[in-house]
Amino acid sequence: MSDLKHQLKERLLTARSAVSSFENDASRAVFTGSALAVVLAESASDVSVALAWANSRNIPVSIRGAGTGLVGGATAFDSGLIVSLERMNAIIEISPGDRLATVQPGVITADLDEEAQAHGLFFPPDPASARTCTVGGNIATNAGGLRCVAHGVTSDWVAALTVVLADGRILRTGARTRKNVVGYDLTRLFVGSEGTLGVIVEAVVRLESLPVGTPVTFWAEFDELAAAGAAVTRIVGSQTKPEVLELMDALTVRAIEEAFPSGMRIPRGALLVGQTVGRDAAETAQAILELCRAHGATAAAVAVDDALVEARRMSNPALTARGLKIACDVGVPVSRLAQMFTGVAALAERHALEVASVAHAGDGNLHCKVAAPDTPAGIAAADMLIDDITRLALSLEGTITGEHGIGQVKHHELPWQLDEVAIDVQRSIKLALDPRGTLSPGRAV
Amino acid sequence: MSDLKHQLKERLLTARSAVSSFENDASRAVFTGSALAVVLAESASDVSVALAWANSRNIPVSIRGAGTGLVGGATAFDSGLIVSLERMNAIIEISPGDRLATVQPGVITADLDEEAQAHGLFFPPDPASARTCTVGGNIATNAGGLRCVAHGVTSDWVAALTVVLADGRILRTGARTRKNVVGYDLTRLFVGSEGTLGVIVEAVVRLESLPVGTPVTFWAEFDELAAAGAAVTRIVGSQTKPEVLELMDALTVRAIEEAFPSGMRIPRGALLVGQTVGRDAAETAQAILELCRAHGATAAAVAVDDALVEARRMSNPALTARGLKIACDVGVPVSRLAQMFTGVAALAERHALEVASVAHAGDGNLHCKVAAPDTPAGIAAADMLIDDITRLALSLEGTITGEHGIGQVKHHELPWQLDEVAIDVQRSIKLALDPRGTLSPGRAV
Repeated sequence: MSDLKHQLKERLLTARSAVSSFENDASRAVFTGSALAVVLAESASDVSVALAWANSRNIPVSIRGAGTGLVGGATAFDSGLIVSLERMNAIIEISPGDRLATVQPGVITADLDEEAQAHGLFFPPDPASARTCTVGGNIATNAGGLRCVAHGVTSDWVAALTVVLADGRILRTGARTRKNVVGYDLTRLFVGSEGTLGVIVEAVVRLESLPVGTPVTFWAEFDELAAAGAAVTRIVGSQTKPEVLELMDALTVRAIEEAFPSGMRIPRGALLVGQTVGRDAAETAQAILELCRAHGATAAAVAVDDALVEARRMSNPALTARGLKIACDVGVPVSRLAQMFTGVAALAERHALEVASVAHAGDGNLHCKVAAPDTPAGIAAADMLIDDITRLALSLEGTITGEHGIGQVKHHELPWQLDEVAIDVQRSIKLALDPRGTLSPGRAV
Repeated sequence: MSDLKHQLKERLLTARSAVSSFENDASRAVFTGSALAVVLAESASDVSVALAWANSRNIPVSIRGAGTGLVGGATAFDSGLIVSLERMNAIIEISPGDRLATVQPGVITADLDEEAQAHGLFFPPDPASARTCTVGGNIATNAGGLRCVAHGVTSDWVAALTVVLADGRILRTGARTRKNVVGYDLTRLFVGSEGTLGVIVEAVVRLESLPVGTPVTFWAEFDELAAAGAAVTRIVGSQTKPEVLELMDALTVRAIEEAFPSGMRIPRGALLVGQTVGRDAAETAQAILELCRAHGATAAAVAVDDALVEARRMSNPALTARGLKIACDVGVPVSRLAQMFTGVAALAERHALEVASVAHAGDGNLHCKVAAPDTPAGIAAADMLIDDITRLALSLEGTITGEHGIGQVKHHELPWQLDEVAIDVQRSIKLALDPRGTLSPGRAV
């Protein structure tokens, strides 16, 4: 490693105490080995040097933004190299005329959004973890979030990338134009590739004009989760477009209120929370509330501020604190939401386990979290329920992961959704771009 | 070929007179050879049989929808097989609850849009040729069109694909959910791959709710093309969102009025034509007209109907009829539009050739068409000007093709935009998926 040290100097950490703090992410993937070293990259060149070095020595490389991933995509490899992008956190340029921002991968998502707002723009991708996760991580996982129902997912907002390939070569994809059909869409191939095809070292992302006026927050209570699901299906199928449309079941609301008390009322079945924006935000919110009332809401109103949406962002830590730790990230077509909620309730009863559901409901994207004691048997029992919930989503023409990715944690589920041909094509692309299997080997595909 | 005939029966055409009508597309790529046969596919299985047969014999395959392509992507190969998808033209399902449609590739784009409208929905991708081109062709080329400024390009509207691979295997990509991050985004890899990676035999496309109310059409005249470009930059950078924002220079307007007289007024410099939709369509149109007046429009008003937008759709045949045949499809960041128009005018003067510009202005996507006599020298002179216009777009951080694709016609331009690493990665993907080079060999990448 002395040759690498010679090139990277103090940007290469090898002391065990320093390395160990980079070995895990926010998932429940357990890392028991010991990584070789951490590269605190400050430039594309640092990343290129590190990958070329590892690639020529068959040393596996894990890539790490802020370590907020939930599927073990950033966990270290035993005797592997860790490339950390946290120092590459510059917003290089905001170009209001073209509504583009050029950023390094380590920029915190909310920081980019805030900087864009200073120019009358915003960055629509909005994962619940926006204040701690990085834009590079969002791109690597094609992250979702709260505003997807209105604006789509991260891949819809990436115009161009600079990527270091497994052998250290630097690839530029995409363009600064709105339309570009030159060759295969490599930009979108790298978005969501979970660090298995290359390391994103720079991105040109699209921004959107801030909507006119103030957002309007609304809420609706339902006695039954399935009724709330049916109401969401109607809202999404209507001409009224919310900016945010989130659903929490009663257990989730209770957990949030216990962990972060704000006076939130606990519904019997579920609480739907959303926002509308634009010139007709108030009118649109009223139209949505009418739909809610017509489809089973027991109470529904406009809120005085956005506290409910902020409370929704705390669901993950709140549920984890209450012992509901084992999670999934399934998606169903939005017309199947009621069926999905009914099915999850039946499965919870059959497994005799507590399940909390919180959903980016407008996208049909559910995070079910199962209570499990910290014992191998308890976790195994929770995993069995999660597996059943995942298979239920697939039986409703759904997906095993809407926004978190496959990583390690969901790797066993991959053949449930993809057939042999699809897996073979995925792997042939991996082999074409990383023939020695240097980058995040054995993960994602 | 008797084994293939045995399997496909009357769906295999071999008579020279029948085959020859499938050998060309709408581009100026000249086909001088003779194809072996045409497969009039009626199912995925027909396509699979044909590709497996051709692949095992190293016979090149060209793929054809309606033959409206402008870059020679669907032209036959000498002694090659032609797979025609025109008979696979069923709209299999419209699912209003999920706003999805399942279609075969040969469905005419406008027919899908019309069928969707019967359900209160529409299909946003809207190439000027929507009444003659196919959805499969739109997907294969990642087609653009008039509504991209509001809704993005075709790839933003494709949820899932069924694709026959070069060796005849059938691949399913994507999902019916709004979010799906399982493996690499193969759906978007095939969108825009121009028939080089597989044959799309079924697609699940997204639909959008029809906007409330009636669209409002507006227009603005400018004495200078560059001023119109600058106005477009301002409009796109503002909070007012048009559904359509198209620009025609004086020569284009004159050509349309000559070929399809409708009483259109010929501007001195350029005519901007657009539409707004939604509850505040009239208000938004007025805000855009104000921006036009503030940035050099000499006249600007709301129109009584959408005749101007329909006239715009006729620009390609009208210019071709007037001898302006040699075209490009460049794009620039929208902030560079005025520079681009000024530069094109200077190049036209230097080359002493007549150039007409018509633009999906809101996307920064220009189609410049150059007058050329039908002589080799005349075409070569026009090509030199087109090359200079293309290099100008690249110098403004643009692209060599916004929506038509590379095909054969633009293949020599590929290294102008992509560097060696990018071309190498593109070709490694082609090699991974089609190692024998069966599908559209030598095209696109």
